[in-house]
Amino acid sequence: MNAIADMRCVLVSKSLDLRRYLGPQFAHAADQVEIVSHPHEGSAADVRLAVAWHPPDDAFERYPNLKAVCSIGAGVDNILACPSLRPDIDVIRVVDPAQAQMMSSFVIWHVIGHQRCFATYQAQQREQRWRRLGLGQRRAQDMPVAILGFGEIGRRVATDLAFLGFPVMAWSRTAKPMPQGISGFDGADGLDAILGQTEVLVNLLPLTPETRGILNRRTFARMFRGGYLIQVGRGEHLVEADLLAALDSGQLAGAALDVFATEPLPPHHPFWQYPRIVVTPHDACEVSMEAIGATFRATAEAIRAGRRPPHSIDRERGY
Amino acid sequence: MNAIADMRCVLVSKSLDLRRYLGPQFAHAADQVEIVSHPHEGSAADVRLAVAWHPPDDAFERYPNLKAVCSIGAGVDNILACPSLRPDIDVIRVVDPAQAQMMSSFVIWHVIGHQRCFATYQAQQREQRWRRLGLGQRRAQDMPVAILGFGEIGRRVATDLAFLGFPVMAWSRTAKPMPQGISGFDGADGLDAILGQTEVLVNLLPLTPETRGILNRRTFARMFRGGYLIQVGRGEHLVEADLLAALDSGQLAGAALDVFATEPLPPHHPFWQYPRIVVTPHDACEVSMEAIGATFRATAEAIRAGRRPPHSIDRERGY
Repeated sequence: MNAIADMRCVLVSKSLDLRRYLGPQFAHAADQVEIVSHPHEGSAADVRLAVAWHPPDDAFERYPNLKAVCSIGAGVDNILACPSLRPDIDVIRVVDPAQAQMMSSFVIWHVIGHQRCFATYQAQQREQRWRRLGLGQRRAQDMPVAILGFGEIGRRVATDLAFLGFPVMAWSRTAKPMPQGISGFDGADGLDAILGQTEVLVNLLPLTPETRGILNRRTFARMFRGGYLIQVGRGEHLVEADLLAALDSGQLAGAALDVFATEPLPPHHPFWQYPRIVVTPHDACEVSMEAIGATFRATAEAIRAGRRPPHSIDRERGY
Repeated sequence: MNAIADMRCVLVSKSLDLRRYLGPQFAHAADQVEIVSHPHEGSAADVRLAVAWHPPDDAFERYPNLKAVCSIGAGVDNILACPSLRPDIDVIRVVDPAQAQMMSSFVIWHVIGHQRCFATYQAQQREQRWRRLGLGQRRAQDMPVAILGFGEIGRRVATDLAFLGFPVMAWSRTAKPMPQGISGFDGADGLDAILGQTEVLVNLLPLTPETRGILNRRTFARMFRGGYLIQVGRGEHLVEADLLAALDSGQLAGAALDVFATEPLPPHHPFWQYPRIVVTPHDACEVSMEAIGATFRATAEAIRAGRRPPHSIDRERGY
């Protein structure tokens, strides 16, 4: 693709046509890198870089000199799950401030929707019913929000919600410095403590063996009664039957779900029609092509220079 | 009501049972003021203060020594419209920072709803349809919002939207100092200029003879095609037929209406069922009882001291 290419990058996905998804701009951004599609039949030894999304199980066996695999999003769990990913291969996630802002607007809409009872108003409009809630309205200050996961995205969401007046708490696996006005929690004890003060729970965790199934009956039971779940992490974080039970019992007033264990969400899945569940098609945010291109270029430069690429994840930790 | 009352306040409304609405806390807050209900049959000459909401036309004729009328909200147009309101009577509106925050959350929900196409997602969920908008999503930076009216509430709404990344412009009758990052416009030329750069229009104007009908066909025609109206001023600002025409033609993509010329919105009014109109029952925000009480006390103190009460409106200007 490029006459003076000194490196080959393979596109690997079983769920997306990556060449089409990334578009012609990407090939242009990939300065001096030849882009090939998996399975690459030519000299596999020259493939030192990959861009991957849901790679097939044996994908990376073919490329003995592969140094790094770039995700096309903030999540890398779909790449880490690939059995042929050798331990010495760096896995790179895309960092995109614009993505954090998109996630934040998505979360804010649901938080305010719960605060201001917009589902009630919508139901009243369908019935042509004029009924004010008036002084029954709750202030932001009275509705504590907990963010699970405090990376770039969690930080943006927390900062925005705090600016709008919500008491914001954040939980992460290990202690992190917190912006002013945001209460930090960490570890297993911290999770117990934060949930005991939470009305709205926002899940932004990475998917790891430790976080799988973290949104379960015990978690919901610790929250304020009539709480609200905003699930924008990964489908596998949620125990689906436990959510339905918590909604049925009134422990949760509602839930906004953007991610699912099986995507697309299958026809006739109970989530589609459950009255207090809002379903969106894994669309809370998406990294921009600019950010994917910038991450890719930085990775290629680092490999050429023999450095570790920036935004390489900790393979041990899983994010 | 109070043994050492040195002043009498009359409650005047044809639409609300004000004594019940204000509750027992108000009588307590009204230190050394005797609260009576209109029409007060006793010594009308002792009535120096009123709390009013939609007063009957002849209400104030009865009270020759009335100095001030307190509203129970930020709007005073329903009091100014009363023919028996003498020109020398001060009209007091309630200023409540918490109310500005409530209004802001209401407006933000609609702005993000338009930006992020939540109505589309809701329709898709009803059809159990999984379709991502993904990279079709628009960033806050690409969606300019204009605020009409820049008092305490407009300032809060503008500041919050700017913090979330939206380009924010504000228009008022006369030029006002603007917070950083917000573009100010004023006067008739300024209105033309701001509308030409507007996708989302938020109406927070007071109702005056000049602003009546300001949301009309010409206004909508100047906005970006596919724009969005958030109407949280007064119903009389809007020419209803012009809104329906702008929606029918696609000039406006949608509208959120919280206020109406006739409230409650009558049964079978076309707004109830128009698919791209969101109706709420004049509930965007309401001042708190604390703020009403504080305004009332400050007014009573000023009258006792022979000063002009704070938050008296400019009778000439109408707000």
